[in-house]
Amino acid sequence: MSSTTSQFPHDAFVHRHVGTDEAAQRRMLETIGVQDLDTLLEKTVPGTILLDPRTDEALGEGVGEREVLAELRELARANTVRTPLLGEGYYGTITPAAIQRNILENPAWYTAYTPYQPEISQGRLEALLNYQTVVSDLTGLPIANSSMLDEATSAAEGMLLARRATRAKVGRFVIDEDVFAATDAVVRGRAEAVGIDLVTADLKDPSSAASALEDGAFGVLAQYPAASGLVWDPQPLAEAVHAAGGKLVLATDLLALTLLASPGELGADVAVGSSQRFGVPLGFGGPHAGFMSVAKGLERQLPGRLVGISQDSEGSPALRLALQTREQHIRREKATSNICTAQVLLAVMASMYAVHHGPDGLRRIARQVAARTSDLASALRQSGFALAHEAVFDTLTVTVEGRAEEVVQAFGAAGYLVRAVDADTVRLSLDETTDAETLDAIVQVLEDFAPAASAPPEGDEEDGLAEIGRAWPAELHRTSPYLTDPVFSSFHSETALMRYLRRLADQDYALDRGMIPLGSCTMKLNAAVEMSAVTWPEFAAVHPFAPREDVTGYLELIDSLERYLADITGYDTVSLQPNAGSQGEYAGLLAIRAYHLSRGESERTVCLVPASAHGTNAASAVLAGLRVVVVASDAEGNVDVEDLQQKIKDHGDELAAIMITYPSTHGVYEQQVRTVCELVHDAGGQVYVDGANLNAMVEVARPGEFGGDVSHLNLHKTFCIPHGGGGPGVGPVAAKAHLAPFLPGHPMMQDPEHYVAGHPRAVHGGAPVSQAPYGSPSILPIPWAYIRLMGASGLRHATASAVLGANYLASRLQSAFDILYRGENGLVAHECILDLRPFTARTGITVDDVAKRLIDYGFHAPTMSFPVAGTLMVEPTESEDLPELDRFVDAMLQIAREAEQVADGTWPADDNPLVNAPHTARSIASNEWEHPYSREIAVYPGVWASRGAYGADRHDSEQMRIAGKYWPPVRRIDQAYGDRNLVCTCQSPEAYAES
Amino acid sequence: MSSTTSQFPHDAFVHRHVGTDEAAQRRMLETIGVQDLDTLLEKTVPGTILLDPRTDEALGEGVGEREVLAELRELARANTVRTPLLGEGYYGTITPAAIQRNILENPAWYTAYTPYQPEISQGRLEALLNYQTVVSDLTGLPIANSSMLDEATSAAEGMLLARRATRAKVGRFVIDEDVFAATDAVVRGRAEAVGIDLVTADLKDPSSAASALEDGAFGVLAQYPAASGLVWDPQPLAEAVHAAGGKLVLATDLLALTLLASPGELGADVAVGSSQRFGVPLGFGGPHAGFMSVAKGLERQLPGRLVGISQDSEGSPALRLALQTREQHIRREKATSNICTAQVLLAVMASMYAVHHGPDGLRRIARQVAARTSDLASALRQSGFALAHEAVFDTLTVTVEGRAEEVVQAFGAAGYLVRAVDADTVRLSLDETTDAETLDAIVQVLEDFAPAASAPPEGDEEDGLAEIGRAWPAELHRTSPYLTDPVFSSFHSETALMRYLRRLADQDYALDRGMIPLGSCTMKLNAAVEMSAVTWPEFAAVHPFAPREDVTGYLELIDSLERYLADITGYDTVSLQPNAGSQGEYAGLLAIRAYHLSRGESERTVCLVPASAHGTNAASAVLAGLRVVVVASDAEGNVDVEDLQQKIKDHGDELAAIMITYPSTHGVYEQQVRTVCELVHDAGGQVYVDGANLNAMVEVARPGEFGGDVSHLNLHKTFCIPHGGGGPGVGPVAAKAHLAPFLPGHPMMQDPEHYVAGHPRAVHGGAPVSQAPYGSPSILPIPWAYIRLMGASGLRHATASAVLGANYLASRLQSAFDILYRGENGLVAHECILDLRPFTARTGITVDDVAKRLIDYGFHAPTMSFPVAGTLMVEPTESEDLPELDRFVDAMLQIAREAEQVADGTWPADDNPLVNAPHTARSIASNEWEHPYSREIAVYPGVWASRGAYGADRHDSEQMRIAGKYWPPVRRIDQAYGDRNLVCTCQSPEAYAES
Repeated sequence: MSSTTSQFPHDAFVHRHVGTDEAAQRRMLETIGVQDLDTLLEKTVPGTILLDPRTDEALGEGVGEREVLAELRELARANTVRTPLLGEGYYGTITPAAIQRNILENPAWYTAYTPYQPEISQGRLEALLNYQTVVSDLTGLPIANSSMLDEATSAAEGMLLARRATRAKVGRFVIDEDVFAATDAVVRGRAEAVGIDLVTADLKDPSSAASALEDGAFGVLAQYPAASGLVWDPQPLAEAVHAAGGKLVLATDLLALTLLASPGELGADVAVGSSQRFGVPLGFGGPHAGFMSVAKGLERQLPGRLVGISQDSEGSPALRLALQTREQHIRREKATSNICTAQVLLAVMASMYAVHHGPDGLRRIARQVAARTSDLASALRQSGFALAHEAVFDTLTVTVEGRAEEVVQAFGAAGYLVRAVDADTVRLSLDETTDAETLDAIVQVLEDFAPAASAPPEGDEEDGLAEIGRAWPAELHRTSPYLTDPVFSSFHSETALMRYLRRLADQDYALDRGMIPLGSCTMKLNAAVEMSAVTWPEFAAVHPFAPREDVTGYLELIDSLERYLADITGYDTVSLQPNAGSQGEYAGLLAIRAYHLSRGESERTVCLVPASAHGTNAASAVLAGLRVVVVASDAEGNVDVEDLQQKIKDHGDELAAIMITYPSTHGVYEQQVRTVCELVHDAGGQVYVDGANLNAMVEVARPGEFGGDVSHLNLHKTFCIPHGGGGPGVGPVAAKAHLAPFLPGHPMMQDPEHYVAGHPRAVHGGAPVSQAPYGSPSILPIPWAYIRLMGASGLRHATASAVLGANYLASRLQSAFDILYRGENGLVAHECILDLRPFTARTGITVDDVAKRLIDYGFHAPTMSFPVAGTLMVEPTESEDLPELDRFVDAMLQIAREAEQVADGTWPADDNPLVNAPHTARSIASNEWEHPYSREIAVYPGVWASRGAYGADRHDSEQMRIAGKYWPPVRRIDQAYGDRNLVCTCQSPEAYAES
Repeated sequence: MSSTTSQFPHDAFVHRHVGTDEAAQRRMLETIGVQDLDTLLEKTVPGTILLDPRTDEALGEGVGEREVLAELRELARANTVRTPLLGEGYYGTITPAAIQRNILENPAWYTAYTPYQPEISQGRLEALLNYQTVVSDLTGLPIANSSMLDEATSAAEGMLLARRATRAKVGRFVIDEDVFAATDAVVRGRAEAVGIDLVTADLKDPSSAASALEDGAFGVLAQYPAASGLVWDPQPLAEAVHAAGGKLVLATDLLALTLLASPGELGADVAVGSSQRFGVPLGFGGPHAGFMSVAKGLERQLPGRLVGISQDSEGSPALRLALQTREQHIRREKATSNICTAQVLLAVMASMYAVHHGPDGLRRIARQVAARTSDLASALRQSGFALAHEAVFDTLTVTVEGRAEEVVQAFGAAGYLVRAVDADTVRLSLDETTDAETLDAIVQVLEDFAPAASAPPEGDEEDGLAEIGRAWPAELHRTSPYLTDPVFSSFHSETALMRYLRRLADQDYALDRGMIPLGSCTMKLNAAVEMSAVTWPEFAAVHPFAPREDVTGYLELIDSLERYLADITGYDTVSLQPNAGSQGEYAGLLAIRAYHLSRGESERTVCLVPASAHGTNAASAVLAGLRVVVVASDAEGNVDVEDLQQKIKDHGDELAAIMITYPSTHGVYEQQVRTVCELVHDAGGQVYVDGANLNAMVEVARPGEFGGDVSHLNLHKTFCIPHGGGGPGVGPVAAKAHLAPFLPGHPMMQDPEHYVAGHPRAVHGGAPVSQAPYGSPSILPIPWAYIRLMGASGLRHATASAVLGANYLASRLQSAFDILYRGENGLVAHECILDLRPFTARTGITVDDVAKRLIDYGFHAPTMSFPVAGTLMVEPTESEDLPELDRFVDAMLQIAREAEQVADGTWPADDNPLVNAPHTARSIASNEWEHPYSREIAVYPGVWASRGAYGADRHDSEQMRIAGKYWPPVRRIDQAYGDRNLVCTCQSPEAYAES
């Protein structure tokens, strides 16, 4: 019966995802003078690479919302959730339902972009300031950044920070033997890539530490409390390291620090770790927010993003990203870190967990964990077990004499996961979810393995909590206060928290209000159905080191996503491990380097990077141990083939790779891309294709087919993972088969073998680039669902629609703005660059003024001054509908007219709606108004002067536009003021005033 | 081990729910001059009824968030979700994920109150106008209300409407034999209560219809398409009914009407039905939105709420509830309906389903359903089955010759639920979730029961959809357009829909922005954790007529909730069936009436109602067939005992009951409540205690212990079900054991026996008052979770905290406003009445002015002019924290000062911030400002003039208050204008202008 009635699922998704329907697309095609979408692709994409629509069935046709949910539920059911006591940086935690609902499941938070436009990001900037305050207070170090990708990469970044802070000539770094295995592996990989000599030692032992430091070291990494559970005093180590001229990096645990003296007090220069256990679900490894804080004097060395307090043009306190000049996108090949994605959404959650519980609540949680660990230790000792340490917080290392595997099995049968450290030892970590029932179960399981017949444990019936920290060194009991800012004591009731979260969200502009037309950032729809599975317990409550049999569903999801992505990109194999595009890029370059080394070509260290490349390209190359050589662009913004040939010749056998972006960062499909790839290949180099612009290629062209050896993709750009206000991200690396052995592996990876198209499954054998084997698996259902929902033809339609949208904008905007680059037929790819330089020269109105004025019109600005200073890069994506595209065009055209009024003297250069933008509600409420333009022009510029017949449609009437007005909470922010007066934690207004 | 470490779950909930912590409560107690919470209870609650804290373990101690979720998951797992083909008004549907996330799971929508303050409710009013337009367009009748409780009560209301519209002397109403069984049962119960003579006939047969109408009838009810599936032409019936002077009520199906000629076109006067299948989950029966639309001339007879277009003081279109004078709270004992709750949240969802799909999308869905039904019918005929009807839409009635039960079993084994109509007949209904796989399965199951060996069905391989509606009468093919308003074609992409939903939500004020201090409405926290389970598929996807073995989890949840509520109220048994307080009240009064009848005391028909009672009390009494006699209040607002004695004497053996509210609607615990109850009991009457104010009694006093025989509760007031902008609600009726047999039963109730404290389980044997056996079960996890989370001591603490909050407000406000009623110790209960009459007399500023001015301060107004005209009734609930209480007090005190400035002539009486309130952002943006007060005073009155040291705390600073400003979208609305020019569906602005 199926054939007669199954023509369509009426919950088909393509027309929910693509904003423009057939009628709208017809009008747009007319505007740009192209007949249909197929012709558009033919005219934009070089014939040498343009794919025909698929005939194979690899991706299948799109399924409906209901079916994709059913499929995801089946995958979820294939996972088994046993209670993890596996620790190693990942702990059970209770996500307060109010935080899950109002942040993690709220598009106002998760569809926001990185807060580069601070005037419209005050809400999440405040949440991040809270996060920095939590980290700074608990670690006892004055400056914390607004999150890192995970704990292990934070530790690696700590190592690199120590090196540059000491301007180390001796490239030696010492790592304690008692750190998390994954941290060790990631740090090791990073050290190797840049030639740091990594030495392992028992740094908790003074004499061993002394001998490790004897020959000098720019720094050391130790863990506090240690991986084995030990609470130890790092002060002697700090003294020894400092005496040797190095820096002490301590990996630490925020919850433990509510009871333990802080790293800062104990002499650490850098603290790193993860905030996962502050309410962020395990998610089989992520995403979670790592952290880093540093001692005074190191703030300018800090990688990642730093939120600081500045002031706006009226002198009111206002937040924005501080010290941006140290960021890799500006430093390029001089960069010493390529961390450019944070984990904002997760940092916001963790910060709100601290806001919700407050210092007393957190201390109570920590005391409970410590008390239960202490109770358990007593019970085990009474049963005759030897424990590795007396002084512990949450982790017990237990001797079981050759029976470790058996013990693990017994726990498994009882529904608990513990870790065999070696044949004689098991380790288990408690957390805030550990209840009395679990404690009883642990004791019961272990009783069968008790070394001697023993009396039933006494003391069970004691009253009161066990004495906490009795075994800790006295000086390690925390006495210093933390979280004293009122924010941590004002929102403990759910009503208060809910309103605080809403008030913050209401200050921000995200996709749920309007278009965010950021070039190269692809701010497209993050559909609710795609997001549904993220918070299901079968995905959310899985530990990253759970045994393979528990994660069948996850492994199937991962495998099929690897296949889909390989198929879409034309590569053979994919690693989903990298937590960000930058990490994928780094992993890809590492693979290239390792490939050359495997062939004995160690001299191949030169990486060609076009002048127009993203700054991160160069930074990643440096971190992968490559030298950057810049290749020129020609007048059209394409790679200058002559210069390329010259550079290849210049560097001969040193050529390792070229990094290109396709379509180019200039927003065009370069015609000669195959030639570029061939030239490099012919010279023995590898081709790295940056996947930032993959949204213009899906089902239209495949980088793996036209010459790429490896690419990173951005699942948060092209495949619908929301940007979350600046993280999470997933940056898979996809490569041809010959690079498979060099893609990131992981010591704990549940299935080391991966799909390789046309080949047997193969082990990805490179060093891990993330702490968790599969990076951030809990958000992988999002891209998986997107691909399933769209199917091959839907994906192609989306790509073509994105290209149509960009060309429509270019076509309508060209009357007022120059389009900087176009392809051969005068068309652009999926984005276009508006050259404002002539406009600025004529009117004095800058890119900045236009960007801030767009806020008054209710828009997020396009990308500013990248890749070319003085320009705006606009990418509408396929998700915007025609009314929104037109509203944007109208706003830009009207801004152009406003600028002409400055040019012609109607408005003075220093007092006009553009240089004064954005305008707040507050600013029009005062009686004084001495500007030469009206209040209405200030705040409602888009309402009264628009194309067409407003008022004819109730849903786009003047009244509705007024009702939908977004009000920025602050005026234009003074960036420099805040950098001169660096304040990066919560402060009272008086403190701002003093600073 | 448990005892040493299990002192507290640190995710304990009480301090999340109760807004004021210990320190705050100490300050509040100081302010009111009471030592502690226990003393407060002793001083407010009469000693004759005050309970000691519990020592029994019936309710247990509160559990943490994590544990309650685990418990709910276990209940969920105990349900089995088989694919329901049971129909009867409930159909599988696909809730678009964007609607689920952005409405059903979004506090901005679900924590809103009924839109009685229209200026701050424009978003949901627009959504409801869309709903009315959907209903009006599809049913072809010009006026639709904004939702009904369910289909069956809509039908019953249709009957009552017909009676009053015809001013019928003859109390006869004819019901077709082919309507849903539950509809029939509910209508039957209602008819019996008010003495309507209900006649059943086959109205689809003209001669049978003629003979039924022969003796006159004020109306008829038929179903179109019929319950058996038949698509029939109601035009001959309409003519016959009209010829007899009656009204035709058609129960109908919105999805079918996208293909079928509308009831309005076919001559119906009234259309009723359910919008459930427009994207609202089945939820084991509800909540869903019923609907009703009427022909021109009947609009003033329409029960429920009607949204209409009016204009604000600047002449802009603005929405508000129309024709409010016909509502039961105003008509009281003259009311002819007690429908006072709607199903706003569900109506909003259904309306957005129509917005999302648009007319073409809906038609496509309907065509698919019809085509698959038609395909299935062909296949079954080919297999030799006899089908009852040729002309069908989605339902097939199939003859299976004595094997109906077997067939049902076979379907069950295959995972499908179908209905045995009788021993020879099964019925199955398809819906939008019916896929090809289901069709195949149906055919396969039925093959085993095919009456004769038959060839394998042919036609399977045909191309194209089956010809739809071939068998329908030609004149029933719909030709008239529907959903032509642009709203139904503007938001088909998810991005557009998400933004539309946000824009609407942003216009409204709900609990997620600030306090809604509505007296008697108890707008307390609706915690996210309580809401979590509502959308789990194991609760959401269950059909109300699923067999008992499929709903074990639901039945356990329901049983334990019945026990909890019985225990809390001191009653013996509870029915959760009523979908609103009004329905609970009606059910309770029916039980009283039935009880008297069962004892042969049919003369007992007088219901005493105090003058201060809620209007609904009187309306419900009338509907239950009782006569209302008003009892006076004394000067303190208490029941006047002397007058009561006189009335009892006057009515002697006619006394059926008294209805009292406790604490009284005047906000005090009346001392003599036991006396009142005894007097009535002594005279043979029953005592009905209205549970509207139960929030002041939970764990402090039990109505069932101090004299009540029966009460309704409001789970949406006292037990945290969110108000959803004016529905859903659950209004359980709780009663002493002697009334158990008369509580609402239901022909399809899975377990007719209910808990009766101290007695064996007993059947609730009364007529059903709702369409579904258990009312709105999908939201019952909310109160269940609340009770589990709070435990007995938490509930008592909440009650005491609510009383504390009200007394704190009374204490701080009494300097400026008279507190109208107090108890013996000068204290109030959980709410207080501010008497504005002297204030108004002195200053000319009315209750309305104060309410609208509160909007400028960022508050929802308290209850206006109930129970006493010229007053405001304030109920803060236990969930507000002290800063919010103080912010409210400050606002009220400052409003009082503003009013003095009017009184002293500083501001003219007709131009001051009070009479001009509320002020929009638009209103301060114009250059002209000719008011004698500043723009700042207009829109930021609460910011600069507040008590204490604002600015000292970043989180309550001037800047934060400005950033958190709520902007109303319209100025004060002219109520009368809209009633004079009634427009209740979507219109273009031109149409408004004309009207």
